[in-house]
Amino acid sequence: MSQLQRITIHPSQLQETFIILTPKQKHYLLRVLRLGDGDKFIAMDGMGKWWLAQLTAEIAQVLELLEVKTELPISITLMMALPKGNGFDDIVRYCTELGVTCIAPVISDRTLLKPSPQKLERWQRIATEAAEQSERAFVPTILEPVTFKTAINECQINHRYICEARGEYPHLTKVINHSSSEIIIAIGPEGGWSDSELEIAIKSEFQPVSLGRRILRAVTAPVVALSLIAAICEV
Amino acid sequence: MSQLQRITIHPSQLQETFIILTPKQKHYLLRVLRLGDGDKFIAMDGMGKWWLAQLTAEIAQVLELLEVKTELPISITLMMALPKGNGFDDIVRYCTELGVTCIAPVISDRTLLKPSPQKLERWQRIATEAAEQSERAFVPTILEPVTFKTAINECQINHRYICEARGEYPHLTKVINHSSSEIIIAIGPEGGWSDSELEIAIKSEFQPVSLGRRILRAVTAPVVALSLIAAICEV
Repeated sequence: MSQLQRITIHPSQLQETFIILTPKQKHYLLRVLRLGDGDKFIAMDGMGKWWLAQLTAEIAQVLELLEVKTELPISITLMMALPKGNGFDDIVRYCTELGVTCIAPVISDRTLLKPSPQKLERWQRIATEAAEQSERAFVPTILEPVTFKTAINECQINHRYICEARGEYPHLTKVINHSSSEIIIAIGPEGGWSDSELEIAIKSEFQPVSLGRRILRAVTAPVVALSLIAAICEV
Repeated sequence: MSQLQRITIHPSQLQETFIILTPKQKHYLLRVLRLGDGDKFIAMDGMGKWWLAQLTAEIAQVLELLEVKTELPISITLMMALPKGNGFDDIVRYCTELGVTCIAPVISDRTLLKPSPQKLERWQRIATEAAEQSERAFVPTILEPVTFKTAINECQINHRYICEARGEYPHLTKVINHSSSEIIIAIGPEGGWSDSELEIAIKSEFQPVSLGRRILRAVTAPVVALSLIAAICEV
């Protein structure tokens, strides 16, 4: 079971034996994910092709083409406000089963507790177990918890959605872009996002969406979102 | 919070102040649900109209038209093999939030434990809490656990689906009938249905369907199925 990080590339970035990384991708691999010389990662073209690559002096060497059947053709980052109690354990387990690529836990205005440093390790262990159980090819990345505002500022994904239960927003399935290679979806804690958080997200081009007419718990909403996105991309 | 049972009627069954019940509906109300004189229930026409009705000497009197915003326009029965441990608690909670109408727990060939009589009461309490939390108008019905074969024989719903992880079956979203007023979906335990169970189901006109390419836990599969059906019917 490989625990490699993944990035999405444009097919034109691939040159025989190496990948021409954009400055953003370099920043993400070297600074955000903290990969170094010799570290391997996955490059996906968003159309079902995956390559195993290796960093050497900031250049990405292509090692091999990978065969992947159980992974989604889209990279999904779940930006999830930490819910109360052990709810995040369930979120990591369910969303890994459903094909999530990366989970970014965030501390929102209504998040009650700050996670202990042991939590991240625990979530990574749960993700590894769930990836094996569901026969996935890769284990999702789980990032260190940061504040919602920091996460929004660092977000480099173009197709951005934020779930909001109250208000007349279009249903996720109506607005999702079938041809996106990567999307990010933000989901709030119990009680939802604060007004100022929703405002910041909309300013940062997150499109507010609904997951249906019933009020979902914080742990249920990401499971629903992932189920819908997976079905849209895979069927 | 009303805890009324629900049946789906054809619009032609409604006559000013009463509903002409079919023999099957009478059997379901009187024998399966064990309603008696004076008991109330909900009649739905499957097109968004709901009536509160009352049984009087086996005749259904219409009491009033109900306004419903958070309920699905379709009646969904989840026939769910009992998983190990307390997994069924989670299934009841998640599926209630997602709009399930009726949950029929079944004992399958691979079900390890027989539920204690206190379990049904516990599941009904969880369903009531979840229905309130998700702002639903009604609490789903939870039937007594019976064997899978008994449940299959008693099934009176026309649109029947059975989820099976292994094998090349069409995806649920490809085969679901948008215009159905009621459907039943059967989901197996850990390790899936036995070959003979799948065979019996197919003989009883259950259509085998897939929920995607990854292997889901028994508790995850119904959440995915309900998320997809709700989105198909509501969006």
